[in-house]
Amino acid sequence: MFDKQTYISRRKALAEKMKSEGGIIVFLGNVDAPAQYSNNPYKWRQDSTWLYFFGIDEPRYAAVLDIDSGTETIYADDADIDDVIWNGPTPSVAEYAATTGISRTASYRDLEMAVGMAQCSGRKVHTIPPTRYYNKIRLSQLSIWEPSVPLVKAIISMRLVKTPEEIAAIDAACDLGREMHVRARKGIRPGRIEQEIVGEMESVALSKGWGVSFSTILTQHGEVFHCHDHSAAIESGRLLVIDAGVESNCHYASDFTRTYPTGGKFTPRQKDIYDIVCDCNNAAFEMIRPGISYREVHLAISRLMLERLSCLGLVRGNVDDMLSQGVAGLFMPHGLGHNMGLDVHDMEDYGEDLVGYDDDQKRSPLLGLGSLRMARRLVPGNVITDEPGIYFIPALIAKWKEEGKCSEFINFSALESYRDFGGIRLEDDVLVTEDGARRLGSRRLPIESREVELAMEADLAGN
Amino acid sequence: MFDKQTYISRRKALAEKMKSEGGIIVFLGNVDAPAQYSNNPYKWRQDSTWLYFFGIDEPRYAAVLDIDSGTETIYADDADIDDVIWNGPTPSVAEYAATTGISRTASYRDLEMAVGMAQCSGRKVHTIPPTRYYNKIRLSQLSIWEPSVPLVKAIISMRLVKTPEEIAAIDAACDLGREMHVRARKGIRPGRIEQEIVGEMESVALSKGWGVSFSTILTQHGEVFHCHDHSAAIESGRLLVIDAGVESNCHYASDFTRTYPTGGKFTPRQKDIYDIVCDCNNAAFEMIRPGISYREVHLAISRLMLERLSCLGLVRGNVDDMLSQGVAGLFMPHGLGHNMGLDVHDMEDYGEDLVGYDDDQKRSPLLGLGSLRMARRLVPGNVITDEPGIYFIPALIAKWKEEGKCSEFINFSALESYRDFGGIRLEDDVLVTEDGARRLGSRRLPIESREVELAMEADLAGN
Repeated sequence: MFDKQTYISRRKALAEKMKSEGGIIVFLGNVDAPAQYSNNPYKWRQDSTWLYFFGIDEPRYAAVLDIDSGTETIYADDADIDDVIWNGPTPSVAEYAATTGISRTASYRDLEMAVGMAQCSGRKVHTIPPTRYYNKIRLSQLSIWEPSVPLVKAIISMRLVKTPEEIAAIDAACDLGREMHVRARKGIRPGRIEQEIVGEMESVALSKGWGVSFSTILTQHGEVFHCHDHSAAIESGRLLVIDAGVESNCHYASDFTRTYPTGGKFTPRQKDIYDIVCDCNNAAFEMIRPGISYREVHLAISRLMLERLSCLGLVRGNVDDMLSQGVAGLFMPHGLGHNMGLDVHDMEDYGEDLVGYDDDQKRSPLLGLGSLRMARRLVPGNVITDEPGIYFIPALIAKWKEEGKCSEFINFSALESYRDFGGIRLEDDVLVTEDGARRLGSRRLPIESREVELAMEADLAGN
Repeated sequence: MFDKQTYISRRKALAEKMKSEGGIIVFLGNVDAPAQYSNNPYKWRQDSTWLYFFGIDEPRYAAVLDIDSGTETIYADDADIDDVIWNGPTPSVAEYAATTGISRTASYRDLEMAVGMAQCSGRKVHTIPPTRYYNKIRLSQLSIWEPSVPLVKAIISMRLVKTPEEIAAIDAACDLGREMHVRARKGIRPGRIEQEIVGEMESVALSKGWGVSFSTILTQHGEVFHCHDHSAAIESGRLLVIDAGVESNCHYASDFTRTYPTGGKFTPRQKDIYDIVCDCNNAAFEMIRPGISYREVHLAISRLMLERLSCLGLVRGNVDDMLSQGVAGLFMPHGLGHNMGLDVHDMEDYGEDLVGYDDDQKRSPLLGLGSLRMARRLVPGNVITDEPGIYFIPALIAKWKEEGKCSEFINFSALESYRDFGGIRLEDDVLVTEDGARRLGSRRLPIESREVELAMEADLAGN
């Protein structure tokens, strides 16, 4: 939790932005989410928007900000003796409220009355879209049926630009994320079960942070983006994609991807594709600066990728035509990157287009570009991922071939021999600075193909 | 997943038990539970009842069993091309259904129609109480407002008695749980942060199992039962309670508790209390056999505890009177144990009294005994925990003292010096056999005070 002045200033800035709207803003913190049964919840995780404006990391909290009068009220209940026995003594609601600079408190159930009174007197009631199913139920109990677009836009405008204390928190998360990736890399040996490596690496996240910022992707089927099956044994000669991040104890995320040759050395064919992805990652980073839109960067990287795939004979023809027809989407059906902060895809539940697109930008229907989560013109303080990838997805290739889609550009017969190749993705986290960009974390994970092989050689030697 | 015959037999047995009720039974599997935002879920965990009757470990599945006609239908949707790109190729619904011995399948949304038709024709629609918030919403969409007590009772009667394949699965979970505890014990050193040890031990659960079966309790404040704050440094001379379990890859739980002297040696005072708890654990195990009720065992252990605390001068007077007045609850405000299986508190959401109490048993209002989750007369196949504890809870002692509660029995002034003692709990998992009991897992974790000290000595020596 930051200093209480941080939260006071954020709420003040938000109220200022919402002044012309008027009314009240209702914030719902999370409650525990049942895993096996109601009283056996998943690890406690507070709502990110709540963390941003209040910082109180406890379940069953809510708040109302009255835009017109400026009053702020926390709704929560003090622990009773049973809570003390089972969960230990905790600060009172008033004490927690004081840590975020609020003096008015009321019972959690009083929220109904506060919202009801505002509704009865015809005032606007603003909320963000609920993330958790419990909060969906809670909002319907409060008769709040629609999120407030002005509120969502106001919060996006704030959270998209990270403050120095947030950047420090993300740097720390990235350092821990790097440590987790190094631990994973050291565990790669043919014959081991993927799950064993996942458990080892996640212990870094759990020992020093909240845990992983999303379910770890560790797979020899890199062509499957969100592969969470870790039952396979590591086979020699394959590529292992590790896309994983930590969430720090103060709940900021990291998100890195590296792709390793399972035996420590790339085959020439693997190296050819790997180097394209690596060059795309570096080229994107070089382009990142205030003023450029991330859509432009995505397109430039798609162009570079197609040019290089053309040299390998996998595509052919005019690159401009290929770009406009969406050929790049066959190889990289996802976007170049997303915003990152308290959420690994920051604010995703606010609506991807509201978060990632300027008012004058429209989302493309093309595969790949259409999945771009962050297209905006960059401003200093943006924190984004740079994660190009090349994949050979048998089902997708078969579909395009069957449909004759872009067949003038794609060398389907050459692609045949890539059927078992898998996929490669390389991802760094990047801060947009006043005059360019900086990779987050104090050291970059090895990424150049030669550098990766040397690191794996050193791992094997036990260094 | 077990052989499909297992699931066919279980459903057949259930339909038989429900024959006189008639109508249909609706089963809802889980969907993903959002953590940070909707598309960043917590680690996937299927509903336990669904696992028991169907075994299909995939989200967004439902089923209807028609008790009268015997037809069984799975409701779920096949993956589309986007799913294949993002999540990889998966078996079809028909293929999954075949693994559980069902041939009729329909779309997930068709469930509405199936339930609606049964309701329109006045047939009974049976469900269990929903655990997850999403399934609460889903049941209200289906206009199912009340769980079915006959259904719940029928399932309890089945799940309370573990079959040989379940017992083998629990034994394996216990072996892994033991390995996790040993890893934790080896990490105990004054100066280390508790969270570091938690991360190390949980890597065992993640590397070889689904993960932990509940949020790990690892605390020098053993008097707080569910202490999940791990930010403290290990201090010499304290007691560290570790209450933790794994959930195996086939989703059966283990649940062990050990209490360690942080410096490797118990103080004489710690040893006095520790040995009482250890003797209570052993005495409970000796009593466990078919026919005895676990309520009787709880009471016998409470008696033993009071007798021993009386020798230490912490209580005084007639033990029968103390028992009936609930004096034991001051020291052990929880029950002796609970059922364990697919859930660590097995079936808890069915209702604790339905699960843990025979029809002729009534729950006590006393502190401690009133928290007993398993009171039933034991039968072979029951899997229960044996987890006595002694705690010195400052807030609770202060409350009783202030209220003068049981003041004729309790030596409040002697308790003063135990204010910083903390608490001790020792827990094993036990199977009720034909002629007695067997501790689950192939080896018991060291538990006798001398044995624990020797193990910690060996840990320090690096053995």
